[in-house]
Amino acid sequence: MCVYHTDHGDLALPLEERYRQYLDELVAYGHLLPTGVPGVYGRGTDFERVIERFDGLVTRAAAPLAPEVLRFPPIFNRRHYEKIDHIRNFPDLMGSVHTFKGGDREHRDMLGRFERAEDWSRDLAPAEVMMTPAICYPLYPSSTGTLPPGGRRVDLQGYAFRHEPSADPARMQIFRMHELVRLGTPDEALAHRDHWLALGQEVFRSVGLEVTPVIANDPFFGRGGKVQKAIQREQNLKYEFVIPICSGEKPTAIGSCNYHLDHFGAAFDIRTHDGAVAHSACVGFGLERVALALYRTHGLEVGTWPREVRDVLCL
Amino acid sequence: MCVYHTDHGDLALPLEERYRQYLDELVAYGHLLPTGVPGVYGRGTDFERVIERFDGLVTRAAAPLAPEVLRFPPIFNRRHYEKIDHIRNFPDLMGSVHTFKGGDREHRDMLGRFERAEDWSRDLAPAEVMMTPAICYPLYPSSTGTLPPGGRRVDLQGYAFRHEPSADPARMQIFRMHELVRLGTPDEALAHRDHWLALGQEVFRSVGLEVTPVIANDPFFGRGGKVQKAIQREQNLKYEFVIPICSGEKPTAIGSCNYHLDHFGAAFDIRTHDGAVAHSACVGFGLERVALALYRTHGLEVGTWPREVRDVLCL
Repeated sequence: MCVYHTDHGDLALPLEERYRQYLDELVAYGHLLPTGVPGVYGRGTDFERVIERFDGLVTRAAAPLAPEVLRFPPIFNRRHYEKIDHIRNFPDLMGSVHTFKGGDREHRDMLGRFERAEDWSRDLAPAEVMMTPAICYPLYPSSTGTLPPGGRRVDLQGYAFRHEPSADPARMQIFRMHELVRLGTPDEALAHRDHWLALGQEVFRSVGLEVTPVIANDPFFGRGGKVQKAIQREQNLKYEFVIPICSGEKPTAIGSCNYHLDHFGAAFDIRTHDGAVAHSACVGFGLERVALALYRTHGLEVGTWPREVRDVLCL
Repeated sequence: MCVYHTDHGDLALPLEERYRQYLDELVAYGHLLPTGVPGVYGRGTDFERVIERFDGLVTRAAAPLAPEVLRFPPIFNRRHYEKIDHIRNFPDLMGSVHTFKGGDREHRDMLGRFERAEDWSRDLAPAEVMMTPAICYPLYPSSTGTLPPGGRRVDLQGYAFRHEPSADPARMQIFRMHELVRLGTPDEALAHRDHWLALGQEVFRSVGLEVTPVIANDPFFGRGGKVQKAIQREQNLKYEFVIPICSGEKPTAIGSCNYHLDHFGAAFDIRTHDGAVAHSACVGFGLERVALALYRTHGLEVGTWPREVRDVLCL
């Protein structure tokens, strides 16, 4: 595979300006449709086709593992959300779904506030669901109980929500991940993580994306978050595949490989066949970010991409 | 095409019991995965494959119209939500996304409430987005301005949220619709609605689903809602394709054809080429409901479905 030399925009420009420039180009080519909210976009025909084809490539890469294929919607049980520490570690990223549970009188009151352009949403009641912050979270509560011998391998794909409005087109508030999850013994989980650490790089390289695996640096919240960040770095549990999109100094993670230890096994009482608390690991491919990296690396028109990349993606 | 005689469960049982029975079967076959919230399910391999193939059938049926293909995520701009009357007509179905915007001190307070098992969500702030209640809503604000001559035809697919927890497996809180939308003159919009009123029935019939088109009966909220319901019936603007799933007396809508008059054109200042306010119409196929109707009509194992149905669906 050749190495592609990418133009990451005018590096003399400030970062915010480079974000705007790339976003303007993506909009001009019809790849993203602005909706008036930073990080929330419609997807154009071509952008969606690129995502679909890369998604298929991940499916083919995973095929030798013969994973179960499951799909979860973009919301999940609030009670399950409360068991995964997200409220401690990433409260600023959460999406809590609220709704109207009143009668005619409360409705009139709410409409009154709405018409006076006041905040009409403050008396809404929490619904039974939260936005899904990571594609694999709904899998664990549905796996409570004892795993079959050899554990499980599961293929997931769907939308995740993270409330982090940004001018960076690669930092979306709602985006899709294709994930392969392993549930089993510590050895099985760790082997999965390491298998995909190597295979993930191969998958990206096959479409001309020269990613670098780095130890992850998740945005843990607040003062306590600094400790969490140090622990994450120390434990070497999570790696990200990064590549420059708008910036060489601040490359973007377009995938990650994460060994969760027994975090989810303990939270949702998942056991291996011999009764031990299950461990888990997953690899995730960030589909919108991969598309953005492909357009940045090979150009905004798929027709001009290198023949070998289009062949791999059936484009 | 043959007519299929369907076993809709034991009709002597009360409706709630028949819902539970069908849901239990769907879960036993791995088609739906319970999540502890009524109407929120994971989707099994086979269920997802049926949806994907019916989705493809809709794409093929729409191909002669050469629609633009756009995709919107399951959340949209709160400011746009405020322009579409949903807060008046269906407040109880809404999903308003809230998040944590405080600092370390507010975080400690929220965690305190969380640990005392109190409502920790009440001081969250409304995010800039709402759950999308209908797949085509985000299209209209992105179409502000003047349409090309001949208007536009757009193919959409994605998740909608409606807060209506129910034991009925066909009444999901989060589900996908495949929609074909027309923006243009009143004649163009009405012709689109009528074209799909006929073609939709053909599509369903081709997979052995004998639907009946009926005037829609949307669940407008509260006392004022009675008037809205009467107006909707009188105007004959919206039709639903219904078929028995759990009940013969209360058949389920698995698709609909809706002429919106200039409702969205006026709300979002969409104009036809000659400067008039644009009219719109859409057809929507409820993908999860179609799958549930197919399993109900042909059996819970795809392998036993009639050969001709499997051929049409490439299953």
